[in-house]
Amino acid sequence: MPALSSRTSALLVVFAGFGLASAQTFRRLGACPTLGCVFPPDQTDFLAGQLFDIRLEVHAPVNGSEASNNGVPDEKFTFCIQNGKGSCTDVTKFFKVQDPVLEKWSFSYFEDLFAKDAGTPNLVNVASKAYRGLSLTKPGTYTAKLSYNGGSSTVAKWVVRKPATKRKAKNVLFFIGDGMTQAMITAARLIAHKSVNGNYQSLMQMDQMENLGHQMTHSIDSFITDSANSATALYTGKKSSVNALNVYADSSKSALDDPKVETIAELFRRRIGGALGIVSTAYIADATPAALCAHTRDRGQSAIVVTEYLNGASAVNSTLHWPTSCEGPDVLFGGGAEQFIPGSGSPNGTDYYKAFQAKGYKVVRSNTELSAVGNKDKTLGIFSISNLAKWLDRNVLKDNLKGQKNSPTGDGTDATDQPGLKEMTIKAIDILQARSKNKGWFMMSEAASIDKMMHALDYDRALGDLLELDDTIRASIAHLKKIGELEDTLIVVTADHGHGFDVFGGADTKYLAAQTTDRKKRSAVGTYAASGSSGYTVADGMSPNNNTIVFGSQGPNFPVTWNPRYTFAAGFGANPDHREDYALQTKGPRVPAVSSADGAVANPNDKPDGFSVPGTLSVDESQGVHSLQDVSVFASGPGSEAFRGVYNSVDIFFKIADVLALGKTH
Amino acid sequence: MPALSSRTSALLVVFAGFGLASAQTFRRLGACPTLGCVFPPDQTDFLAGQLFDIRLEVHAPVNGSEASNNGVPDEKFTFCIQNGKGSCTDVTKFFKVQDPVLEKWSFSYFEDLFAKDAGTPNLVNVASKAYRGLSLTKPGTYTAKLSYNGGSSTVAKWVVRKPATKRKAKNVLFFIGDGMTQAMITAARLIAHKSVNGNYQSLMQMDQMENLGHQMTHSIDSFITDSANSATALYTGKKSSVNALNVYADSSKSALDDPKVETIAELFRRRIGGALGIVSTAYIADATPAALCAHTRDRGQSAIVVTEYLNGASAVNSTLHWPTSCEGPDVLFGGGAEQFIPGSGSPNGTDYYKAFQAKGYKVVRSNTELSAVGNKDKTLGIFSISNLAKWLDRNVLKDNLKGQKNSPTGDGTDATDQPGLKEMTIKAIDILQARSKNKGWFMMSEAASIDKMMHALDYDRALGDLLELDDTIRASIAHLKKIGELEDTLIVVTADHGHGFDVFGGADTKYLAAQTTDRKKRSAVGTYAASGSSGYTVADGMSPNNNTIVFGSQGPNFPVTWNPRYTFAAGFGANPDHREDYALQTKGPRVPAVSSADGAVANPNDKPDGFSVPGTLSVDESQGVHSLQDVSVFASGPGSEAFRGVYNSVDIFFKIADVLALGKTH
Repeated sequence: MPALSSRTSALLVVFAGFGLASAQTFRRLGACPTLGCVFPPDQTDFLAGQLFDIRLEVHAPVNGSEASNNGVPDEKFTFCIQNGKGSCTDVTKFFKVQDPVLEKWSFSYFEDLFAKDAGTPNLVNVASKAYRGLSLTKPGTYTAKLSYNGGSSTVAKWVVRKPATKRKAKNVLFFIGDGMTQAMITAARLIAHKSVNGNYQSLMQMDQMENLGHQMTHSIDSFITDSANSATALYTGKKSSVNALNVYADSSKSALDDPKVETIAELFRRRIGGALGIVSTAYIADATPAALCAHTRDRGQSAIVVTEYLNGASAVNSTLHWPTSCEGPDVLFGGGAEQFIPGSGSPNGTDYYKAFQAKGYKVVRSNTELSAVGNKDKTLGIFSISNLAKWLDRNVLKDNLKGQKNSPTGDGTDATDQPGLKEMTIKAIDILQARSKNKGWFMMSEAASIDKMMHALDYDRALGDLLELDDTIRASIAHLKKIGELEDTLIVVTADHGHGFDVFGGADTKYLAAQTTDRKKRSAVGTYAASGSSGYTVADGMSPNNNTIVFGSQGPNFPVTWNPRYTFAAGFGANPDHREDYALQTKGPRVPAVSSADGAVANPNDKPDGFSVPGTLSVDESQGVHSLQDVSVFASGPGSEAFRGVYNSVDIFFKIADVLALGKTH
Repeated sequence: MPALSSRTSALLVVFAGFGLASAQTFRRLGACPTLGCVFPPDQTDFLAGQLFDIRLEVHAPVNGSEASNNGVPDEKFTFCIQNGKGSCTDVTKFFKVQDPVLEKWSFSYFEDLFAKDAGTPNLVNVASKAYRGLSLTKPGTYTAKLSYNGGSSTVAKWVVRKPATKRKAKNVLFFIGDGMTQAMITAARLIAHKSVNGNYQSLMQMDQMENLGHQMTHSIDSFITDSANSATALYTGKKSSVNALNVYADSSKSALDDPKVETIAELFRRRIGGALGIVSTAYIADATPAALCAHTRDRGQSAIVVTEYLNGASAVNSTLHWPTSCEGPDVLFGGGAEQFIPGSGSPNGTDYYKAFQAKGYKVVRSNTELSAVGNKDKTLGIFSISNLAKWLDRNVLKDNLKGQKNSPTGDGTDATDQPGLKEMTIKAIDILQARSKNKGWFMMSEAASIDKMMHALDYDRALGDLLELDDTIRASIAHLKKIGELEDTLIVVTADHGHGFDVFGGADTKYLAAQTTDRKKRSAVGTYAASGSSGYTVADGMSPNNNTIVFGSQGPNFPVTWNPRYTFAAGFGANPDHREDYALQTKGPRVPAVSSADGAVANPNDKPDGFSVPGTLSVDESQGVHSLQDVSVFASGPGSEAFRGVYNSVDIFFKIADVLALGKTH
């Protein structure tokens, strides 16, 4: 946070005593502090030369605690920008652009839960203008001032950070363990690595990275984030709102006209022209992969996302020119065949495999095809409908792959030949290396189902996918070394947010199942000394206290057994109604709650041997939710020392941009 | 873990297929892998010259799955030690000591919960010897081999790490936030520091330390630790068992004859003769302070602990000579007057204030006396019976200090004039500085009630004490700078273990209280976008979305208000039965559960407006419990770069010892 102190001093510091509306649960508009809204808002940092849109809004609430001006918004607002201590220049002159036409709309929101229960929304009328595709190249501070309502103003302080001039790394391999906290990494270590008398005999690859940091994951307008706006922070250096991809959320109806910001992938393409790879175990239009290229307030627009992958952001809204693009990434591997098979999920119902092929892509749809395809062409790999299978089902409980009818071909067969994150990532490295023409490459590789399985309270599957991520990092380092690129590649591993999972003891699952009352079943949980040793690192029938090192059929770095009698017991305070038995869910991913007339209730078929745990979340929630805690950052390779310490999520973007020297001051 | 790979290769690696007893919930004896036990056990690392005892045991279980030799233990066992590739020399010759008399005893344990329910323990007969006060000075690997039962053997690999030869820091200030995880630090930042559009305007002091690391907290024989054995790991570089202070837990009846290891405080006294300070907000005989000086398997022996403070470990068991001591620390500040007021809690019922005075101590019993006392004498400061008051009650809800009858004088009045961690720590610095005669000083300062209030699910009080710790670190840095000692002082901040707390959203406490059913009350929890902004950093009546910076009556770095309408919502999956309303507990620390004939049940008087949350823990538990996750380490000052990265808790001892150059190879 280099500019923190200078900006802090510019803000008012006053002591107590205000009386304003206390709207919190639903706020009028995210990063808009008053009736005048400036996007990018106050406290925005830019990379020198990074492209962005400006959106101005003047609000006139018709009713509610902020009702103003009889609901008529000021249409004569003005906007000027001042660099350092210079004069404030009108935006059209400052950026040498035409003034756009005035836009007008209205929207409504609830002030709080009482208003929602009563069905009494507030209506707001809006006058607005937007300026598109701008950039600031001169490092320093800027003051952007919106003047409206005859004397009111909204001021945004912007900072253009001084960029690095020397490129330190040729390639960047950026791993995201979606939803991955340190407690999960610790639990994964417990189940996959043998400890003898408190001393681990092997470690996670993450444990062994050269540099360690923490990043803060909160949103621009809420302290808990979702994966869309946290990925936006990591890739653009801008905090945003829940569900937004590389835009600031404005109040207009369209999700595609919100003010955009340029991503690291777009910058890498525009500045360097290097090769770009996107790999995920989620459907490929999911938020974390989508956030490299897409610009929309609504992460749910999957067909839009794949259109932007193929043709760039301007293709989906040609009236709003966006002069940058990561159009046609060299590698795109994941799930989500429903956006490619012609039908309701694909762009305009067309065959989107064909659309990619028409632009020169090789298309692969199984692990066999993936390993057979060459390295010289752009490659689209889609390996299932929806998210890819979890590591545990692909490797240990393979029967669960059957009966899914999720073949990426859409022929109704099962996608039983899916690659894992490791196979996708190693192949992607080879293609990117072959296609980069020595300009270097950037790849994002996401272990998506750590998050998805934490949502389902399916801790075993979440940890399986976390261990697959760790194994992928380990294999990537070995592969990069083999092809001579390790010394030129910055590797960063982090998460986009957490889930408040932790292990609190062990459970004797045999004893638990044998008891007949909920209260007695809970006696099976052993805490402190009775947590004992890990039951996952010994063979079936072996005591957890046996110090012999054994390997299971997945080799080192994975559990020897996934279903020991003595399991770990874990949980979090943010739950839907559910049942718990602390044992492995062998029949495919867990479904903890089902809907009823009275909201979500515990799924009676989930953990039937367990005990009942009424939830703490709203009964609208049938899953676990994200949490607040800072997440870890592990980095190795050239420039990785910059990732030490504690910083904001947005700083990750600036650190990577500086290692690649993507900033331009002219 | 420098020696990890060399030792790993020495261990057997085999593939699956064993058949042994699966005793886990209650194991026969912690770090004893077979029927022959060696303490220090396999995988122990030593600082060169660090003192330790050896305990050997040969077990003959009379019944149970390991029944052996008709219950007659082999009394003719032998024990030899081999340095590197040399020959294995009998222990008496290796250390030039006499062979001790053979000891014999028996003990019993349950194999699992079924055996406990059935009341069928296993009986074990034991033959044993112990060798006291030894040390190894030559760096390298050692093989210690116990031979018994005509051909069986138990082998322990020991490593003497190569010590640093150059002292880097004069002083060490070691802060422990008991039970403090990154999720708590993140939550404390949320409530005490203002964020504007996702950008914090000020940061925690911990966020700003020079170096960041993670340490693994697990025990030697269970993956969840308590504070006694985790402190043992931090102070001695040896993992131990739950409840043990600076000893390995053997199976004998006495808690005072278990094999000892030398602590960092004893080493610092013996090697350098510097000044020693111990400060805690707990009763001063509690595990974390006690672990600097005491040696006992049972942390509950409070009178023994204070005796060891005053007279050293040999004073409590004169037959077992222990040739090192941190006897008479220069500063001892905390609670726990019940060990000093003559009575059932004090050593032999004597007036222990007087015992300290007789040895030259100044005694202070209030904040007023603390600030008035000089710096030249050894000083004992005891400020209340039991634990000190929490920061929130001392500073915000002061009425809760009344009616406690906890004056440290024992006169039945209230201890209303208590210092906080900050006042105690700053005064301790001054005394240590005055008394160190330029030899330097070592201080441990503990924020104990982070843990104690997490146990009580009283998250507000836990975070209050965490913020007090952060404020103490900030003030200590400023004070060290002022007295010219900052550049010579290594500052390390860490925790001894976690609690699986995390924030998962916001709660509208007004709406929650107004609903009449548990399920509807849960609707007050807002997740993701509805978590909103922090309600703690705005003044009463101000919207949480207001970006103005205001300070409360405790100044910056603390919440403006502790009881906003929109609170954070937090929790963990390891709970006793309890009720929840996510609001501040204004009437003193929380008591979530009370005992009943059916075990612990929710306290009906705790959060009566809230909803019921049946627990997940055994109904024997009336509190929350510790968790597994790695905890953060923050360090600044000379030598602090050694604290970067991911390592085991025991490594903290070696890092500090190396910064002080406490190892001796001759």
